[in-house]
Parts: sequence; C-alpha cells; structure tokens
Amino acid sequence: MSEPLRVGIAGLGTVGVGVVKILTQNADIITARAGRPIEIVAVSARSKGTDRGVDLSSYDWVDNTADLAAHENVDVVVELIGGSEGVAADLVNAAINNSRHVVTANKALVAHHGYDLALQAESKGVSLAYEAAVAGGIPIIKAMREGFAANNIHSVYGILNGTCNYILTMMRETGRDFDDVLQEAQDLGYAESDPTFDIEGIDAAHKLCILTSIAFGVKPDFDAMKIQGISHVNATDIAYATEFGYRIKLLGIARRVNGKIMQILEPCLVPINSPMGIIDDVYNAVYAEGDFVETPLLTGKGAGEGPTASSVVSDIIDIARGFKVPTFGIPAMELSDASWIDLGETRARYYLRLSVIDQPGVVADISAILKEQKISIEGMVQRARAPGQAVPIVLTLHDSRHENVVNAVEAIEKLSVCNEKPCLMRIEEI
Amino acid sequence: MSEPLRVGIAGLGTVGVGVVKILTQNADIITARAGRPIEIVAVSARSKGTDRGVDLSSYDWVDNTADLAAHENVDVVVELIGGSEGVAADLVNAAINNSRHVVTANKALVAHHGYDLALQAESKGVSLAYEAAVAGGIPIIKAMREGFAANNIHSVYGILNGTCNYILTMMRETGRDFDDVLQEAQDLGYAESDPTFDIEGIDAAHKLCILTSIAFGVKPDFDAMKIQGISHVNATDIAYATEFGYRIKLLGIARRVNGKIMQILEPCLVPINSPMGIIDDVYNAVYAEGDFVETPLLTGKGAGEGPTASSVVSDIIDIARGFKVPTFGIPAMELSDASWIDLGETRARYYLRLSVIDQPGVVADISAILKEQKISIEGMVQRARAPGQAVPIVLTLHDSRHENVVNAVEAIEKLSVCNEKPCLMRIEEI
Repeated sequence: MSEPLRVGIAGLGTVGVGVVKILTQNADIITARAGRPIEIVAVSARSKGTDRGVDLSSYDWVDNTADLAAHENVDVVVELIGGSEGVAADLVNAAINNSRHVVTANKALVAHHGYDLALQAESKGVSLAYEAAVAGGIPIIKAMREGFAANNIHSVYGILNGTCNYILTMMRETGRDFDDVLQEAQDLGYAESDPTFDIEGIDAAHKLCILTSIAFGVKPDFDAMKIQGISHVNATDIAYATEFGYRIKLLGIARRVNGKIMQILEPCLVPINSPMGIIDDVYNAVYAEGDFVETPLLTGKGAGEGPTASSVVSDIIDIARGFKVPTFGIPAMELSDASWIDLGETRARYYLRLSVIDQPGVVADISAILKEQKISIEGMVQRARAPGQAVPIVLTLHDSRHENVVNAVEAIEKLSVCNEKPCLMRIEEI
Repeated sequence: MSEPLRVGIAGLGTVGVGVVKILTQNADIITARAGRPIEIVAVSARSKGTDRGVDLSSYDWVDNTADLAAHENVDVVVELIGGSEGVAADLVNAAINNSRHVVTANKALVAHHGYDLALQAESKGVSLAYEAAVAGGIPIIKAMREGFAANNIHSVYGILNGTCNYILTMMRETGRDFDDVLQEAQDLGYAESDPTFDIEGIDAAHKLCILTSIAFGVKPDFDAMKIQGISHVNATDIAYATEFGYRIKLLGIARRVNGKIMQILEPCLVPINSPMGIIDDVYNAVYAEGDFVETPLLTGKGAGEGPTASSVVSDIIDIARGFKVPTFGIPAMELSDASWIDLGETRARYYLRLSVIDQPGVVADISAILKEQKISIEGMVQRARAPGQAVPIVLTLHDSRHENVVNAVEAIEKLSVCNEKPCLMRIEEI
C-alpha cells in the first residue's frame, strides 16, 4: 500500500461536510481507485462547537485557518471558505507557497486571481484544482482541459447558475413574476437571503470566466465581461418567448468571432427544444463546440452538498493518482491576454419588448427608428388594445449589428409614448 | 521542451485519418496542452496506395501491422483496426508485452479481452486507453473513472448506438417501418451494409459491458449480458409508445439490485421528456447515478471521424502528460467476478403489444392469464374493430416480476387467437 495522501479541510459548511462524508463513507472504493488512502488529518472552520452531523474528533482542529497552509502533516489544502479575497485567498496563496496542493470550490477566487495563483502553483510544482467551482457535480473542467484537449474550441455555452435557472423555470411554469418567485426560492432555500451574486449573474460570470480561459488559452479576465442578471426579466417576456418558440435562459457565451473573443453573461432566448432550451430547474449545462468533437453537452445538478463535494473529492483523487495538468489547460506562462471583441460589432438576432402608450403612430415611429439603424423586423406582436394606456409590443429582429440595436433602443426609449425601459435580449440558436 | 511522445497508428480508416488530421492540424495547441510534442512516426494499414486525403509520406509505413508493436521509435500504439480477435488483438497484446502504451477505439476487444489486457498493461506499467470505444466524442470513460471517482455508482443508463437511435427516431418521425428506414440509413451511410452488430445491439452491448466494469469494479463479462436489438420494434409500437407518453430507445442499463448487478441491453420505453427520452438522431448519451453526484448526463455525437478521433487524441494527450489510471478504474487484479442478478427476479413496468384475432372472449382470456401470474394491468388500448381479423392490443403493466411476465407472455402466445409473437418491452423512468 502506498503512502496515504493527507488532506486538510478549511471551511465546514455544506460542501466541507459533504467532503468529510464522502472521504469517510466511501474510503474503501476511493482507496482502490486512487491507489492509496486519502486521509483527513486536519480541519478548520469559524466555530468549533457547531454540530455538523459528522464526527470530526479524530482530526486536528486548527483554530487559525491560515495555519493549515503550513500544517506539517497536510499534503493537500482543501479550501471551501469562498470569496475572492480575505481568509480564502490568503490561505490558498500561503498553501501554494508552502508547496501544498490546493483543491477549491471557490469560483470567485479562481476568476479573479487564477492567473497569479496558477503561475505560482506551476512554479512550485503543485496542483491548483477547482472542478467543483464550475457546475457542481458536472466534470466540465476535466472535460474541457482533458477530454476535449485535442480540439481548438470555437465556443462554449453554459447555464451556470442553478438558482437563476430555477427562478426562470418557475416563472414560466406558474406565470408569476420575478420578485414573487425569488421570494419563494428563498423560502425553499434555493436562493440565498442576499441573492445578489446569483440573480445579478456574478456567480455564473465567475464560472464563465474560468471556462473562457480554458477554452481559448487566455488569462481569466473577469473585468472584461459584460454581465447582466435576470431581475429585469418579467412574466410577459417569458410568455412571449414561449409564444415565439423560445426559452429564456441566463446564458454564458464564450466564442471566437473574427479572431477575437466574445465573452458575455446575460439572459438570452434559446429554442425550446435546443440543448440549452431543455435544461430546466436547478440544472446546469455546458455545451462546447470544437473543431473535431462537434457538440458535446454535459448536464447535471450544478450545486448542492453531494454533487459539489463529489467534484472536490475527484480533484483530490487526481492528485493522489499523481495527475498534474496545467491550471487552465496550458502552462500559465503561456496564457495570452485575450483580444476581446468590441460587443458593438457583434451580430445577433434580438428579442425586444417595449411598453408603450397605445396611440396612433406608435408603430410607425418605432419602425422608422429601426429602419434608420438598418434593422429589419422579423416578427411583431401587439395584442392588447387599450387606447391611451400602456401595452406591450414585442418584436424579434433579424440578424443585426449590436451597436445599431442599442442605438435604436435608446432612441425608442426617448419617445414620449415609451413608458418603461425596453427589454432587449439576444436570440441564440443553441 | 520535453521529449516528444511518438505514436504509431494501425488502421487508417475514417478514425485513423481523423487522428492524423488532428495531430497535424492542431499540433501547436496539443503541444501546449500536453507539455510536449506528439509526433506520428509510423503508420500501418492494409493498403499503402489508397489516397486518404492526408499526407502520410513523412511517416514510416509499416507493411506488417504486427511489427508496429515492437517498432523501436514508437511509444504509443494506436489501434484503430477493430474486431475482438485477429490482427487488432494480436497487435494490442504484443504492444503491451513490449511495454508500449496502447490507445484503441476497439470496444469489442475491450469488452471481450479487457480484463486480461488490463492485467498485462498494469503489470508492464503502461496505459491501455479506450475513451473512443464508448460514445465517440463524449468523454464518458474519463467521467466515470475520474470525474465520478468519489462515488459508489448505483446505476448507469446509456443510449450507446447512434445507428439504432437514428433508425428509431426516423421511424417515429415518418411513421415508417423498420426495414424501410434501415434501408434509407444504409443508403445515407448511417448504417453499415451489414448492420447486424448495430441493429442486434452487439455494438452497444460491448460499450455497456465496459461501463458496467468501471461503474461496479467488476471484470467485464460480455457473455453475462442479456442483449436484444431493435429489429422487432415496429411502427405500431413507436406510435403506441408516443400515445402512452414514451419514446422507445435501445437502452443499456447497468444497476445494482439487491446487492447484485443487472446488466441488460434492449429497447425500452422511457418518458418523452426524460433525460434519455430527449436524445434523438445519431446522438449518444450516458446517465449515471452515484451516491453523491446525483444525476449527471453526458451527451454528444457517438460516432464519426471527428468526435471519435478527438477522443483517441485525448487519450494520447493523457499519456503525454504522464497520467495513468487503472484500466477499469481500480487495479485489474482487484476487479471482482460480478454477481449477476437472475433477471427473472427483477421487477419493472412493461409495455406489451399483442396481435390477436378480434373475437369474443379474447380480452377475458388474456386478463385471466395475467391475473394468474399476479400481474395487474395499468392501461390497455384496443382501438381497431375488425371482427375475425388480427388487431393490435397494447397493454402497460404495473410493476411486475420479470419471470411472471415472461410466463404470461408465453401463455398468451399459445392462445389460438394470438397470430404474431408478442412484443414485450421494459418501461424505465429515466
């Protein structure tokens, strides 16, 4: 029997406790697969006294989490605290500097500091592993860095936040509006009491940022991303999308366009029966297009104790097996600064919902603005008749230049009949 | 720059040529990812003169394929010949004996001889890699052996043959019968001129056999599998399945039942909107249930030059990166002989189509037989009225013991009014 791999866990919330459960309950099969035992030797969390439903008495309790980084018996530091700065960042930095492998589920940390950490880890010859940071139990980091390693990746599409997908699904199924469904999701524990990171798209954007880096061999650059959440999507949009044959999904898109990279995270319309259109509830999915592999799709639960902890442990097993792969698929020092595309220059079909006062000449005014911006209308629905009152007008636009569409929407918003901020979304045939 | 990894390719059909294309076209990115160049040094195939659309002139042409196994410049033998015996088997055996790594897309070889080859490869310290053998471009072997390595797997479900899935999809969409659609699939090149291995389920069964071994840590045992193809499924079945809310899929199922393993490959009914129900055309999909990872699904093109070659090259990159994982997830010498469940003891819901002469008392006779076998009817449709002529009667049965169902079907078949072999299929809620 080979030497055990010794693990120290920082953070004993849901995922941390899940990792303890897996490593104890499945110790036999994990030892067989890893070729050596994986032993928890130390743990650290804010409060020692909390009953977490697992027996921690045989592990060394480390009061000061930072001390885990240099714990003499720890080969792998598992960071499950979260946050791009503070305790988590300090711990990971120090652990790598002390030549400890690091396994983390911390998407914010990897998105914001992944490049520097990768440089450091690779110079120290240790792994910085983060399968659990993206799409929970779905082995998408492994698929992208290893499974599709033969390919030039053209594009990656992801539904990367289970809370948002759940809210959008519920809105569709019940016809209720955003705030109402969010409240329910919070009551059920599917959304945090402060849901900002989820509903404003930050969480999903962290994940997309990581996928972009692996797909295109570029430094992760969170600040370069256009991010829009789902709080402006209303029940009317969901209903019209269905009528036009689409679902609304908070979609991460990273793709090559004219030699540059486009990276956006925003609600988009996708066809109802497309690979992304069928992903509902708390499920996540990632779809990649390579020059040879064509159209693989991976889906599954994107969060939760079991799936996320399963991914954390799979990283630990890789380390136990002696597998080392560059943090972002190629050596960190070879990662390039991405050349981001000017979004204004990109083209797409669009969904546009307006709320306007129902009076003569409105459609003529709108049409004139669109024509001026060289945008042609593909479909239009104005169903309600309420002279003098606000009614929705919904349009789909033929493939158009983004900047022209934005200009048109700004001009329409300035019309006196327009009584609400227009809702504009890309239509993606994915 | 590290030493190149030197590759010899045996078999230059579609997949072999695809591998040559990837390794030449994507050499730069592959070198960056693998940390070293991957060089083709030798190739071998039946006919040297054939124009394959790729330039092979800089590679050593090996006339006698067997000689690749001991080629002095070859680190990795890539076997793309196929077949469980003969040239392919001899080459792989010899290559491993000569301490060469082997990468293969040969599902028959791995299903029939994988255990012995794994023992041998592991004793020699070389890899026997076969990502391309199961589900083409989908990295399911990597997902099962590595991504889900933290889990006890409860079950694996797979749609593993693109030809069958295409035929079943076309039958449903056009209402046409099996022979007709098969002919068209052959004309389009989606089915072989001798389609036996595909339509009789052998190809899919080879793949399931491999997945079963990885999922449960047992020796692959192809002979232990119950296999049924799709040639007996007719247009009536497809139409009734839709009416009852199901799709018919050629489904591989491996799962633990009462501490034993069930492994079957046969057409089953699955709910229309279930993870397996939505997989159409030439797509493959594999769905796994673990004790922690819950419900991951991987889908994509299960065949074709690009996807399959992409998986072959991903295996080569793993070898270049120095990654070694036991052939079936745990060391071959630890694989156990599976304890297979007696299928008669398993329980399921069933779809049963009978063709009977429409005369008084028929339904009473059938009901009496079912009652005698303690089987209760969930639904029944007899729509056509044609006194004295054959009409279909379609039943769905509540959860029943398999042996009782088989007994009942045999008894019904013996009724004088029954004029055709009944069609019995499991209903799986997957």
